Amino acid sequence: MSSNMDKLKVDFPELYDTAAKLNDTVYSGRVLSQKEQKIIAIALAAGSCNEVATRKQMENAIKYYDVNKDEIMDALGIVLIMNGKPAFTKAVGVLYSLLE
Amino acid sequence: MSSNMDKLKVDFPELYDTAAKLNDTVYSGRVLSQKEQKIIAIALAAGSCNEVATRKQMENAIKYYDVNKDEIMDALGIVLIMNGKPAFTKAVGVLYSLLE
Amino acid sequence: MSSNMDKLKVDFPELYDTAAKLNDTVYSGRVLSQKEQKIIAIALAAGSCNEVATRKQMENAIKYYDVNKDEIMDALGIVLIMNGKPAFTKAVGVLYSLLE
Amino acid sequence: MSSNMDKLKVDFPELYDTAAKLNDTVYSGRVLSQKEQKIIAIALAAGSCNEVATRKQMENAIKYYDVNKDEIMDALGIVLIMNGKPAFTKAVGVLYSLLE
Amino acid sequence: MSSNMDKLKVDFPELYDTAAKLNDTVYSGRVLSQKEQKIIAIALAAGSCNEVATRKQMENAIKYYDVNKDEIMDALGIVLIMNGKPAFTKAVGVLYSLLE
Amino acid sequence: MSSNMDKLKVDFPELYDTAAKLNDTVYSGRVLSQKEQKIIAIALAAGSCNEVATRKQMENAIKYYDVNKDEIMDALGIVLIMNGKPAFTKAVGVLYSLLE
Repeated sequence: MSSNMDKLKVDFPELYDTAAKLNDTVYSGRVLSQKEQKIIAIALAAGSCNEVATRKQMENAIKYYDVNKDEIMDALGIVLIMNGKPAFTKAVGVLYSLLE
Repeated sequence: MSSNMDKLKVDFPELYDTAAKLNDTVYSGRVLSQKEQKIIAIALAAGSCNEVATRKQMENAIKYYDVNKDEIMDALGIVLIMNGKPAFTKAVGVLYSLLE
Repeated sequence: MSSNMDKLKVDFPELYDTAAKLNDTVYSGRVLSQKEQKIIAIALAAGSCNEVATRKQMENAIKYYDVNKDEIMDALGIVLIMNGKPAFTKAVGVLYSLLE
Repeated sequence: MSSNMDKLKVDFPELYDTAAKLNDTVYSGRVLSQKEQKIIAIALAAGSCNEVATRKQMENAIKYYDVNKDEIMDALGIVLIMNGKPAFTKAVGVLYSLLE
Repeated sequence: MSSNMDKLKVDFPELYDTAAKLNDTVYSGRVLSQKEQKIIAIALAAGSCNEVATRKQMENAIKYYDVNKDEIMDALGIVLIMNGKPAFTKAVGVLYSLLE
Repeated sequence: MSSNMDKLKVDFPELYDTAAKLNDTVYSGRVLSQKEQKIIAIALAAGSCNEVATRKQMENAIKYYDVNKDEIMDALGIVLIMNGKPAFTKAVGVLYSLLE
């Protein structure tokens, strides 16, 4: 948990708790595995061209869900089609920086 | 294939072919199944708030890849977190309109 | 409540409840009035070029929070600066359609 | 001029005038022709997936600046690369609907 | 005024002046206070995931309009709902970095 | 070619080749010059608020297509209208940083 989220938890506990609860509810999917949901989150962060969020999602997925390079690249290919080359290129850069 | 894509194929065959080739390459993923990739495409279309693309991706996924309501909703939950409630609500509306 | 949200409530009650709880938490602001928060929601929906969400937010704000045309236009001017003329024009169109 | 902009002119004349002045200033480019600038505006509207704005920009460019199908498609190809296939497909649909 | 805007003023005075005029017109709202409009601008910058613009709007609002942490967080809550958690998290990070 | 694209070429050659082929097809426009297409790409990168892509497109256009400051600014004016002031300001900052 980043230190900003720590501060949010102290300053605005109800907002923090509700957002955390939403996370828990969503990631307890009915049929998709948490790993599959994490890969979707990577794709959505990449599709929004949000570098910080893409890195956070990839780190989390690699560390806790055994997501590997090929799985991420199979998802980023969809980002290339759906969101264009700059979004794809940015996410590929994040991926390679994490693998080094 | 929509009639606009038919016209594009006639008018700009090289552009049409290259775009189609990109599709084929991406969806021949290495490790994710085509079904998993289709669900990612649904999430990305929904995350971009693009109603027409969301409908097209859902229809295609339901018809050809046996994607069901629970799988789509597990993906749309991630859209709710990553892209907000209006994007989620729009995609939920498309989903229910397709299921009727 | 739209009928899609009704269906969501039946099909995915936990997801529905958590999203509703988030709404309640956020709109119980500490210092901004609910009316001020509703105007911010209008601006964000307009800034995302989401016509359906803009309409819903404006209708709700006009009906339940006595938000008027001048207040909305003062917010849409900020959208013009921050998000450009097409987003502004779309929201102005929604506003006038609601006032007729 | 659409009727909403007519109403805006009456209700909020200073805002209307300043926005119109910005348009005049920008489209009196130093080195690019107005036609080239209009094609850029088409690409930006298409890149934002804004169907109404795309149609308006294309209609205006075709009617007043002799922009033709091939010129627009050369611009939309860039949209395909930079913003992805759904944005491209939507704009191609608008283009063909205008040419019929 | 940033040094880039200084250069723009020298190089492209008419464009600079018209953009400045638009700012003056919009922020002389009819009914919303400038402070309320500044909070809307913070929300829109945050909703677009634009970190630089979010910082600039927050700094300006805190320094010149006495906007405080609670007011900004009440606005960012709406961003969480309307634009998703990554946009919210980024803006919370900017806010805490400014308060330190 | 950036080193990430080098790695992609080794790791995922088919994806790399298809994306490169799309680039070649699109930039062999029928009627617009490559220079005009490059200026459109600058505008689209700027309109998406993507600083890295904006810099890459501007560098490439200045170096290989003799695109100059006035031509870029004529395009960025359209970005100001279509995508708002934060997108414009970010691109102006990139432009001045390249010219220094």
